[in-house]
Amino acid sequence: MTTQVIMLNGGSSSGKSGIVRCLQAVLPDPWLALGVDTLVEAMPASMRTSDAGIEFAADGGVNVGPRFRSLQVAWQAGVAAMVRAGARVIIDDVFLGGAGSQRDWQRALAGLDVLWVGVRCDAKVAEGREVARGDRVRGMAVSQADLVHQLVAYDLEVDTTHTEALACAQIIAAQLD
Amino acid sequence: MTTQVIMLNGGSSSGKSGIVRCLQAVLPDPWLALGVDTLVEAMPASMRTSDAGIEFAADGGVNVGPRFRSLQVAWQAGVAAMVRAGARVIIDDVFLGGAGSQRDWQRALAGLDVLWVGVRCDAKVAEGREVARGDRVRGMAVSQADLVHQLVAYDLEVDTTHTEALACAQIIAAQLD
Amino acid sequence: MTTQVIMLNGGSSSGKSGIVRCLQAVLPDPWLALGVDTLVEAMPASMRTSDAGIEFAADGGVNVGPRFRSLQVAWQAGVAAMVRAGARVIIDDVFLGGAGSQRDWQRALAGLDVLWVGVRCDAKVAEGREVARGDRVRGMAVSQADLVHQLVAYDLEVDTTHTEALACAQIIAAQLD
Amino acid sequence: MTTQVIMLNGGSSSGKSGIVRCLQAVLPDPWLALGVDTLVEAMPASMRTSDAGIEFAADGGVNVGPRFRSLQVAWQAGVAAMVRAGARVIIDDVFLGGAGSQRDWQRALAGLDVLWVGVRCDAKVAEGREVARGDRVRGMAVSQADLVHQLVAYDLEVDTTHTEALACAQIIAAQLD
Repeated sequence: MTTQVIMLNGGSSSGKSGIVRCLQAVLPDPWLALGVDTLVEAMPASMRTSDAGIEFAADGGVNVGPRFRSLQVAWQAGVAAMVRAGARVIIDDVFLGGAGSQRDWQRALAGLDVLWVGVRCDAKVAEGREVARGDRVRGMAVSQADLVHQLVAYDLEVDTTHTEALACAQIIAAQLD
Repeated sequence: MTTQVIMLNGGSSSGKSGIVRCLQAVLPDPWLALGVDTLVEAMPASMRTSDAGIEFAADGGVNVGPRFRSLQVAWQAGVAAMVRAGARVIIDDVFLGGAGSQRDWQRALAGLDVLWVGVRCDAKVAEGREVARGDRVRGMAVSQADLVHQLVAYDLEVDTTHTEALACAQIIAAQLD
Repeated sequence: MTTQVIMLNGGSSSGKSGIVRCLQAVLPDPWLALGVDTLVEAMPASMRTSDAGIEFAADGGVNVGPRFRSLQVAWQAGVAAMVRAGARVIIDDVFLGGAGSQRDWQRALAGLDVLWVGVRCDAKVAEGREVARGDRVRGMAVSQADLVHQLVAYDLEVDTTHTEALACAQIIAAQLD
Repeated sequence: MTTQVIMLNGGSSSGKSGIVRCLQAVLPDPWLALGVDTLVEAMPASMRTSDAGIEFAADGGVNVGPRFRSLQVAWQAGVAAMVRAGARVIIDDVFLGGAGSQRDWQRALAGLDVLWVGVRCDAKVAEGREVARGDRVRGMAVSQADLVHQLVAYDLEVDTTHTEALACAQIIAAQLD
């Protein structure tokens, strides 16, 4: 069976986006890259600051409201349908709900061949990269570093603390069926 | 029946994105905004310059290859599935194939309640706005201004030549079931 | 004498940036474009949210602190020096202090040939364009629309309410010595 | 004497921007960050693709024409004037002319206290990071990695190959007078 979905899960500033772009560059087929950032950008601006939507608190915490959840469920069903229609898709997400977030995706992607990848990064190093990026709320990297991996099961884990994005992408690419 | 999809079609620099953001602001429910730009950004960087992908020629022409087409079909199926799963979606697209492009979307969105909106702008004015944006290949606005509307059927047309984006959005919002 | 500086002053979402890009496109010589946004981006991220720096309040108000002011004075001296060294420069600014802001620039640009241009836009229209841009704090357009022009003296005024950016640029270009 | 300018020189994708943002975060005073990217963005769009301006060749080569050079000289004089007027400035540049580029800056910054910092990165690693960024012309990282350091004299060198941006910034900050 052929891998249809590569799911990357990791905290903010753990290096997911760089790995995604490297995967798109090294994989011979064209893969679509869709992440939680794509979903957030597709939402109304007002959803990014309201209780019903998604809220990025000053301390780096992220709170998701009922309207966000309901659009997210539809989004996940749609991404799964793209795969069933023949697209190969790399998803990068932040499992704020840990194992619960994984279950949501498992339900949406039922019957598809998914490679589950954990993207780790030492919290201190991720915090420094957050400073270097300059456009992120301080504190997200640290608060998410462990949280998003709780009770999540992976086929493969990579760690960007001492490994470059391209090397991580090559490790992942080597695991594809 | 309730409108589930608002489909905006218009040439480059005709003002679609501004209308989309105004629609998201004035409509009481949260609508997702997904456009052809979302799809292009999801593709590998190499697809944006290759014959098999999408090519933005120096004269403003846009050529779409077989691999782009095949990902686009899957993308359209996925967007339709998001709507079937409960999301209300605003799509902005550039029907480079005119009526043929509309048929593709009609097939994907079969059974859904779609409001088809043509976004017009005088070619000369759109060309000036292309200069004012500064980040677009010159010539796209003029070459697409009429082309994208050929034989396309609309429920409603707006013209941004003399009407602001917010006013266009209010006209469209008033037509929703 | 030859015009060395084009100074555009107008409120947020009045259309200054579009005019700047059109001026750069229509003027035969290469002009540098430097605005208050360039200065704000050059500052530390922490200055964008602190009392000592610049603060964008939730209601659209903008407050500038002592450290911002002191960097701004140095910035203005530097921009003037670029002009004295031979560069032609288009500056776009938001005179939050009205005539006082103009005096600061007059001091820095003493002896240089400056074309002072007011960029007007009806407050209601600017407010709608703020919504269409989607990335601005709501309320800035309205709160600045009149404020920034108080007691400021211009060589020329343009109004983007019913005039496109390119046409405004052509009006300005025709006034250059 | 107090350090007034931190000059970072390194090839594309060597990690200069991240170090700049970390320096702004760790230094107690507010420093302005101005780089060659600021200058390129200030130029007319047409200068970015013309023989007289700056040209980014498909193989990653960068060619600078006479009009670019002349604006650059004025820019350097202006940045120096900002420092003389009291601003502390971090400059990041790409010395395509090696020692000649350094002489140009030395002339502009005469009499000021400058900390010259070389930012090194293994060419292979920089090439991988170029892929991970996704928005750069491929080949720039490799072609500039050694070129920009030829015969340049530094007070300090940092190497981002195995050292994080924040750690590099802390090394630099410790050297300030």
